[in-house]
Amino acid sequence: MFDEKLKRLFSPNSIAVIGASDSFDKLGYHVMKSLVKGNYKFPIYPVNHSAQNIWGIKAYPSILNIPQPVDLAVIVVPAKSVPDVLYECGKKGVSGVVLITAGYKEIEAEEGKILEDEIKRIASEFEIPIIGPNTFGFVNLTDSVNASFTYEFSLIKKGGVTLISQSGGFCHICGFLAMEERMGMAKLMSLGNRVNIDFPEAVRYFMEKDEATKVIALYIEGIDEPKRLFKTIDSIKNKKPVVAYKAGKGEKGDEASRFHTGSLAGNYRIWKGAIRQANILEVNSIEELIDTAKVIDLCPFLKGNRVAVLSSQAGPGIIAADTLLLSGMVLSKFSSQTQENINKLLPPFAIRTNPVDMGPAWYSPETILNILKVVADDENTDGIIFIAIFASANLNLTKDMEKIIEGMEAFKKPIIACLNAPQGIWDEEIKILDGKKGIAIIHTPERAARAMASLWEISRLKD
Amino acid sequence: MFDEKLKRLFSPNSIAVIGASDSFDKLGYHVMKSLVKGNYKFPIYPVNHSAQNIWGIKAYPSILNIPQPVDLAVIVVPAKSVPDVLYECGKKGVSGVVLITAGYKEIEAEEGKILEDEIKRIASEFEIPIIGPNTFGFVNLTDSVNASFTYEFSLIKKGGVTLISQSGGFCHICGFLAMEERMGMAKLMSLGNRVNIDFPEAVRYFMEKDEATKVIALYIEGIDEPKRLFKTIDSIKNKKPVVAYKAGKGEKGDEASRFHTGSLAGNYRIWKGAIRQANILEVNSIEELIDTAKVIDLCPFLKGNRVAVLSSQAGPGIIAADTLLLSGMVLSKFSSQTQENINKLLPPFAIRTNPVDMGPAWYSPETILNILKVVADDENTDGIIFIAIFASANLNLTKDMEKIIEGMEAFKKPIIACLNAPQGIWDEEIKILDGKKGIAIIHTPERAARAMASLWEISRLKD
Repeated sequence: MFDEKLKRLFSPNSIAVIGASDSFDKLGYHVMKSLVKGNYKFPIYPVNHSAQNIWGIKAYPSILNIPQPVDLAVIVVPAKSVPDVLYECGKKGVSGVVLITAGYKEIEAEEGKILEDEIKRIASEFEIPIIGPNTFGFVNLTDSVNASFTYEFSLIKKGGVTLISQSGGFCHICGFLAMEERMGMAKLMSLGNRVNIDFPEAVRYFMEKDEATKVIALYIEGIDEPKRLFKTIDSIKNKKPVVAYKAGKGEKGDEASRFHTGSLAGNYRIWKGAIRQANILEVNSIEELIDTAKVIDLCPFLKGNRVAVLSSQAGPGIIAADTLLLSGMVLSKFSSQTQENINKLLPPFAIRTNPVDMGPAWYSPETILNILKVVADDENTDGIIFIAIFASANLNLTKDMEKIIEGMEAFKKPIIACLNAPQGIWDEEIKILDGKKGIAIIHTPERAARAMASLWEISRLKD
Repeated sequence: MFDEKLKRLFSPNSIAVIGASDSFDKLGYHVMKSLVKGNYKFPIYPVNHSAQNIWGIKAYPSILNIPQPVDLAVIVVPAKSVPDVLYECGKKGVSGVVLITAGYKEIEAEEGKILEDEIKRIASEFEIPIIGPNTFGFVNLTDSVNASFTYEFSLIKKGGVTLISQSGGFCHICGFLAMEERMGMAKLMSLGNRVNIDFPEAVRYFMEKDEATKVIALYIEGIDEPKRLFKTIDSIKNKKPVVAYKAGKGEKGDEASRFHTGSLAGNYRIWKGAIRQANILEVNSIEELIDTAKVIDLCPFLKGNRVAVLSSQAGPGIIAADTLLLSGMVLSKFSSQTQENINKLLPPFAIRTNPVDMGPAWYSPETILNILKVVADDENTDGIIFIAIFASANLNLTKDMEKIIEGMEAFKKPIIACLNAPQGIWDEEIKILDGKKGIAIIHTPERAARAMASLWEISRLKD
């Protein structure tokens, strides 16, 4: 019902910050910083009782005093002032609200619940979609809209992963790890107390209306109407892959998450079954969430589960092969033609069957590229794990790594690459490779193998 | 039998590099670089047929021409020349040899096996302990001896973890991850083909003779005499904790590792049982190896499995609590006195039971330290997980983080801290905290929880 309004909420042509401040210890300062330093391209209207200017921008005593239309209002005033401010937003005709302020149904006092009901009523009267309350906000990396109190989110690489989270803290740690792992993101948001924007509304919007989103990642503590989420997904025609991390698996976790955002985490077993039925891929750690989402965003789907492991050293290749087998994947058996070709490219003392130890070819980027090509062309191989671990004595390769990388883009099968070197040595190469079509860089051989297995799971769910 | 000689091998007072070179594409160049740039404190003697000087250091045509005694010889000449060179080392009376050269029993050709037998015979005649052949060498971080072809190992932080690996590639990736995770290491070595230094010899030496080693990490693909390793460990009086990562769990992995270092990985199930009986803690990924070894090195043992989770945000705390419960740990139930004290320190809208959401106290480092103190003093708590996730609006805390860190060192219970921020923001704080007694920093909440569970496992094995 909010579709058009949500478009304006997430990609607004103007933003009012109600409670904007020049004082460093106020959230209103940090929201202004996020918008300004995050390069928001359209007008920002600070709203503040007393100040003339905030962050050097003309301020207004109320949103009603702003002469231009306002698409999005970000509210950071104290909980008790919110109903009045929200009413004014309704009068102004905003398309949406981000309500950062906390102190509602998540607190022990009855007062919080009463205030939240009041907010719900006003939102319904004016038909305003609200993200929050009790949220850090959202970040739209695609269009450079950082409507949150943490500017640093703007440093995340742009890409196709959208995170819908029930916890702002989770968004922070996941965002920082995304930076480390160079995962490209489209949007990230914390739902908070979910006055009228809950998982189903958010998922539907990003699946149906947001082109930049290629894969949706969910962090779920507990939702009131799980069936509604699954029904929503079921009703969407062109589904995008969904990856979910469920917290509150134990009883104690349940209890804690009830306090956190005011709803029970529910029985995990029931959840697990339901998630699977809805074709949602479950992950079990932040890193797995990132690896899986990244690989789905960057790689084509797998047509089968036969994987070739090509490694610069035997050990890391063995570990990757091991992890693949433990994850239900198969090591591809090369055709006799492929094996013959590899045997021509590698000396007899290297492991030339799968996993291939490319060590002896490590001084010749042409040979490495040729091995890659031969394996990528083999119809018995569905995907490739390429491992390169730096060694000082192989420093020559550093110069040539770019050549290998350029060559890899031509392959049409998914390639998960694990490039590992001390900080600073391959940073540039990793950056180049991470932008290539069909290739995802994952931090360790085991994680690369598990990400390949996840890609296979999601490829099968897709059918 | 090699004990005294091993001391001289790992902490030599002089080193000859046989096959030293000034030519960048030779391994002998990189071994020289590792020693020189790695700040080796004693004389280095390059040995080279024709050169007068190598790396600006006087060179000798043979080790027999060096007028001074030589403790360690690092050999990088071609496989066929090794027997002659090794014989000269014997004549010279070296204490030990690092034989980097490959091309022995790991290759398909019969020639390799014959050469290796010859090496074995000479080593036995002169009673020379040999690391290798087919090894990258070893690094003694304690005494700044980088006897390997990768200089960058010298950048690893000094500490108490010693890695004995069956794969050089594994040492490389593990070393680079150790840098990222700031794990302190004492030694790292790759056994290669194990002519006469195998797991039992190495483990015995580091347990009995190397004070700097506090915990031993093993990377095992397959060993010929597993019983000998377990018997060796069993016979040692003051055992140090051992953590092991076993590769070749599947059949295919077995096959690959047989080619790699010439021995069967063996049936994994039999292994698993034997490892457990020998009080060795098994880990299942490189990260888990690092986290576990780091925590054992830095933290006191746990007296029980009751853990308190104190988090700057609810979400990450819930995830840590969840993972603890799934790993067989218990969330400590605070005494009524502790609970009362926390209730005084935190407002009623925060989660004040375990996991504690310290969010509302996040502007006051004194309050955070007080919460930590109250919980550390509670006799119902055996260990603490402390989580701090950066948020721009909490930037004030960045200044004060050092104060919190300083205060934490006074606690006598193990603290695993998870500090997460975009690169550059808490780097200094993390560095300070990582040096504190009893505190280990682990990258994510889930990994922190699993590391705590591993610490509990090893604490119980210790009894």
